[in-house]
Amino acid sequence: QAEQIDWNSYSVSTDLALEAHQIFSPEHGGAIPGVKTSSEELDGITVTRLVIEDAVGSKIMGKMEGNYLTFEVPGLRYKDPDLQKRVAEKLAEELKRFVSLPEQATVLVIGLGNRKVTPDSLGPLVCDNLFVTRHLFDHMPELVEQGGYRPVAAVAPGVLGITGVETSEIVHGIVKKIKPDLVIAVDALAARSLERVNTTIQVADVGISPGAGVGNKRKGLNKKTLGVPVVAIGVPTVVDAVTISSDAMDLIVQRLEQDVPGNGMTKLFSSFDEGEKKQLIFELLQPLGQNLMVTPKEVDTFVEDLAVVLANGLNVALHDAIKMEDASLFTH
Amino acid sequence: QAEQIDWNSYSVSTDLALEAHQIFSPEHGGAIPGVKTSSEELDGITVTRLVIEDAVGSKIMGKMEGNYLTFEVPGLRYKDPDLQKRVAEKLAEELKRFVSLPEQATVLVIGLGNRKVTPDSLGPLVCDNLFVTRHLFDHMPELVEQGGYRPVAAVAPGVLGITGVETSEIVHGIVKKIKPDLVIAVDALAARSLERVNTTIQVADVGISPGAGVGNKRKGLNKKTLGVPVVAIGVPTVVDAVTISSDAMDLIVQRLEQDVPGNGMTKLFSSFDEGEKKQLIFELLQPLGQNLMVTPKEVDTFVEDLAVVLANGLNVALHDAIKMEDASLFTH
Amino acid sequence: QAEQIDWNSYSVSTDLALEAHQIFSPEHGGAIPGVKTSSEELDGITVTRLVIEDAVGSKIMGKMEGNYLTFEVPGLRYKDPDLQKRVAEKLAEELKRFVSLPEQATVLVIGLGNRKVTPDSLGPLVCDNLFVTRHLFDHMPELVEQGGYRPVAAVAPGVLGITGVETSEIVHGIVKKIKPDLVIAVDALAARSLERVNTTIQVADVGISPGAGVGNKRKGLNKKTLGVPVVAIGVPTVVDAVTISSDAMDLIVQRLEQDVPGNGMTKLFSSFDEGEKKQLIFELLQPLGQNLMVTPKEVDTFVEDLAVVLANGLNVALHDAIKMEDASLFTH
Amino acid sequence: QAEQIDWNSYSVSTDLALEAHQIFSPEHGGAIPGVKTSSEELDGITVTRLVIEDAVGSKIMGKMEGNYLTFEVPGLRYKDPDLQKRVAEKLAEELKRFVSLPEQATVLVIGLGNRKVTPDSLGPLVCDNLFVTRHLFDHMPELVEQGGYRPVAAVAPGVLGITGVETSEIVHGIVKKIKPDLVIAVDALAARSLERVNTTIQVADVGISPGAGVGNKRKGLNKKTLGVPVVAIGVPTVVDAVTISSDAMDLIVQRLEQDVPGNGMTKLFSSFDEGEKKQLIFELLQPLGQNLMVTPKEVDTFVEDLAVVLANGLNVALHDAIKMEDASLFTH
Repeated sequence: QAEQIDWNSYSVSTDLALEAHQIFSPEHGGAIPGVKTSSEELDGITVTRLVIEDAVGSKIMGKMEGNYLTFEVPGLRYKDPDLQKRVAEKLAEELKRFVSLPEQATVLVIGLGNRKVTPDSLGPLVCDNLFVTRHLFDHMPELVEQGGYRPVAAVAPGVLGITGVETSEIVHGIVKKIKPDLVIAVDALAARSLERVNTTIQVADVGISPGAGVGNKRKGLNKKTLGVPVVAIGVPTVVDAVTISSDAMDLIVQRLEQDVPGNGMTKLFSSFDEGEKKQLIFELLQPLGQNLMVTPKEVDTFVEDLAVVLANGLNVALHDAIKMEDASLFTH
Repeated sequence: QAEQIDWNSYSVSTDLALEAHQIFSPEHGGAIPGVKTSSEELDGITVTRLVIEDAVGSKIMGKMEGNYLTFEVPGLRYKDPDLQKRVAEKLAEELKRFVSLPEQATVLVIGLGNRKVTPDSLGPLVCDNLFVTRHLFDHMPELVEQGGYRPVAAVAPGVLGITGVETSEIVHGIVKKIKPDLVIAVDALAARSLERVNTTIQVADVGISPGAGVGNKRKGLNKKTLGVPVVAIGVPTVVDAVTISSDAMDLIVQRLEQDVPGNGMTKLFSSFDEGEKKQLIFELLQPLGQNLMVTPKEVDTFVEDLAVVLANGLNVALHDAIKMEDASLFTH
Repeated sequence: QAEQIDWNSYSVSTDLALEAHQIFSPEHGGAIPGVKTSSEELDGITVTRLVIEDAVGSKIMGKMEGNYLTFEVPGLRYKDPDLQKRVAEKLAEELKRFVSLPEQATVLVIGLGNRKVTPDSLGPLVCDNLFVTRHLFDHMPELVEQGGYRPVAAVAPGVLGITGVETSEIVHGIVKKIKPDLVIAVDALAARSLERVNTTIQVADVGISPGAGVGNKRKGLNKKTLGVPVVAIGVPTVVDAVTISSDAMDLIVQRLEQDVPGNGMTKLFSSFDEGEKKQLIFELLQPLGQNLMVTPKEVDTFVEDLAVVLANGLNVALHDAIKMEDASLFTH
Repeated sequence: QAEQIDWNSYSVSTDLALEAHQIFSPEHGGAIPGVKTSSEELDGITVTRLVIEDAVGSKIMGKMEGNYLTFEVPGLRYKDPDLQKRVAEKLAEELKRFVSLPEQATVLVIGLGNRKVTPDSLGPLVCDNLFVTRHLFDHMPELVEQGGYRPVAAVAPGVLGITGVETSEIVHGIVKKIKPDLVIAVDALAARSLERVNTTIQVADVGISPGAGVGNKRKGLNKKTLGVPVVAIGVPTVVDAVTISSDAMDLIVQRLEQDVPGNGMTKLFSSFDEGEKKQLIFELLQPLGQNLMVTPKEVDTFVEDLAVVLANGLNVALHDAIKMEDASLFTH
């Protein structure tokens, strides 16, 4: 069945725009046309604003046009409650600016991913920790009438393999019924680099791309498909096994090149093309192929911590009445 | 806030048509007009067919017009794998007759209830154990192309308090998108009698009534609201605390009447009306009121076992290729 | 099998010393010999210190000799993050005084109960939210070496019906191996009064009594059985169905007495003894009997919130380095 | 901190004796001294008996002396209920022979691993599906007195990072208290080859080796440490990222060697030693290092299916009264 292999899935890939920029900008002298970036760092949190302004930038980056906000926090790799709190705070602050919503606008949060596969459970776990209020406005108005709350709904629609229904179909159905002003889709992502796993948060106003995320999310969720703006929030929790394999091969080839200078070697390696490499990776990862992920053994604590950080950030950003010092009282 | 009390919720109630019949038929000389019943018993499984044929029967019973199939299996109270298997078998057999569907018709199973409240988790647990195939027809046709499988989807939409969205809104949205030929809604119910808890299965072609079930399911799911036929499958896993309280009061009054024959007593008790009783129950159950359920301490094993029985029955009924002897290989 | 009925289990009972005091003190003119109590109330939290000083008090109360600390917080019934925080704070403060431990003393927290039965899942959920450190001292000393942390271990041993092993056997085994200086056992309790469900926290230095708790905890855990001091922390999440039934009967009898003054009635009711009442309750609750619990339909959110309150309180009480404002960063 | 790196953890490794044999036997002309193997294949299930007879064999293999039974079933990769049933049947049959126990001997099953990390949750899931009976002999003898059942207990002790207690300490404590005749430890393993993931079952009478399994199981469980015989049952659910990386490097080097025959290349590659390779892998996998696992994205369904296969096999092997055709009625 070799003729049915999707060779594209044996390419190195990333769900992070910032990584795509790091990969492709060198070929363009450090600046990709149609793409703007700016960064600032404060106390261990680097925030980068990246804008893909046109089709040219989009094509080079392999990402949709729009605004990407990235938080890089290497310290999240170590259990550091104080840092987690500051990240949630910064996230809330930036989110409020990123998404300007009228006070009473309704927000639907979608927790993408498979609750039963730890590194893919980020989205459902964030939903578990949100302060959901949409129903209170009708059924318990006394809890929200003092102001400072907006209607928030949160649904974790499950995954195709378990429901038999495309996630996008379920989300589309719900959006049509409850007509939110904004959809926020939270998802676990795949990074290019292990360093980014559990340390990077991406917020984007472009929605979810088809095929992105840890599991097999086949169809995209965006303004075009859903009819309302879609903000995507993601954290890479895995690297594809294809990526690790490719990196391993590059690394040893590079080392061999260093060790054996000379024209012969250069020729040898340059003759080895991308297609051959994909073929090798395919052989290596058979029979499980492109469906393999690389993830830390302690992925449970990382994902739980990150879910709380995201939920705290969202709770504070969405409800004026929730202050960061009390945010964690709303999560459990 | 006594003026806001919904006194109706302090009445004794049941989600089972068979119990409603047992309660109201004595007042009608044993036979309720517009209602037909017939029963058969085999090896510990009593199957009763009850039809509410017209509005008169519906009004007396307090249940919607339609067909109700009830399985009474007192033995389910004891862990008896052989009996569980026979119940699943009988359920599959009867379901096939109850729901006549063309071979390729698509079925959407909805697991109602709150996965996190054990006696309300039946619906989601049944979904976990179904053989879901709708996506295979597109994505892995080789698994289903030999025939004998129909497209089945299964969604547990969560509950209002967690998602902020009415279950009926989510279900309606999904039904509109995937256009199933039949919806099967599985739910945990409240019985009138403790004897029925975890021993009775009701199948009905009338859908889910508004307000039925263990939790607060506010809106109904039926052909009128969803536009497709809805078969409801339910098992009582609780009795309302209101019901137990009322029964306790009736029991002691009855005992006192026996002990003290005479005109004085009769007068005393007949002067004590329904309204006063509801008032007493209200006092008794304050401050938690009508939201209290009575359920066995080992409710987890009962609910898990029943979920497997229902899932086995459904898997065999929906897929000709699944035989009862292998049914349990599809559940986990 | 009527001869095998354990009629004691058809008596009204409570796991709370404070309730036992309220029940039995009226018979003793308001003060039970050998029992001392004192209370203070601040901002919606009433703290009562109750000491059973001798065998006389113990016998009357039906509780073991020792110190009982009770927090009554009716407001916990409403989702109030600020109150939850204050309760956790007060709990931490009182716990520190109640349990005076040297800085490096090792604490083993035992989360009793069945994770799969929502109202019985409090203990395991508290364990999930504790900051567990015992292993860090060996394996990651850099995380704890700055001081302010003590070795804390947390085990949820499961229940007899699932493991086939008495909880006390598992706990005893672990205690023998790791030799903690103190065991803290957290458990869901049964109250006498519905008002106490999810609103009362009991801390006691007497350990866990045999047969207490929501499920069937057959054997006790205390200094005598384990060889180390055992502090028990419990929250009632259910009332026994036996209790509700008995109350319902008392309530209607009392109402009837009011309505019909006169010697005849007094005689009638006084002739109705405890044994007859137990018999009636037995009839009422058949076939599920004394294994029935009464609990709110939204028990999941109550139990989750209370688990976080207890875990926050414990984390702050056990680790000087954790301040209440950051406590919730340690729970998830 | 390079001086603290445990370079051994950057070596390729396997928890499977059969794989160790495949790796090391070529260096010994196909037969390792002190190791005997024999295989048979029937309908897609290959059973291999491997005995490490002496210290020589043990040292070469890097595995403890003892008997290893391996089931290789490539078809388990595809959801095939019929094959799953046959594997459970074969497992039961072989287990009965492998473990010869008197009828009334008590068995303690230990489910190792972390329930919250999907590929490491095999052990706890098997426990969930066992027919646990030890308590019934005391508390509900009527359920087991007809014969055919033995006392079985099942405990999933959790992992060090969550409890703060070494698994071996908990297990040791329980063994001392309940004095089983046999311990069966079930664990998720790491394989050398992706082909073995979710397709291979290893049964061994040597217990669990220190450091084996998916997570960080630091100490071993065996007859020496526990004082009773320990049978280990494991299924590889991951491959270490170190292994995949090493394989990727080998594969490309091998391909380059093929492409460029000649003395120069041979010299080049032979000069590249194991130490250098470990260094490269270390660089590649930084900062997450040796704690990375490679696992399929659909690991949840594989692990659930395998847990049911193992539990069915164990239920039939341990209880004469349970026949394979009803085995799955005992799992849920």
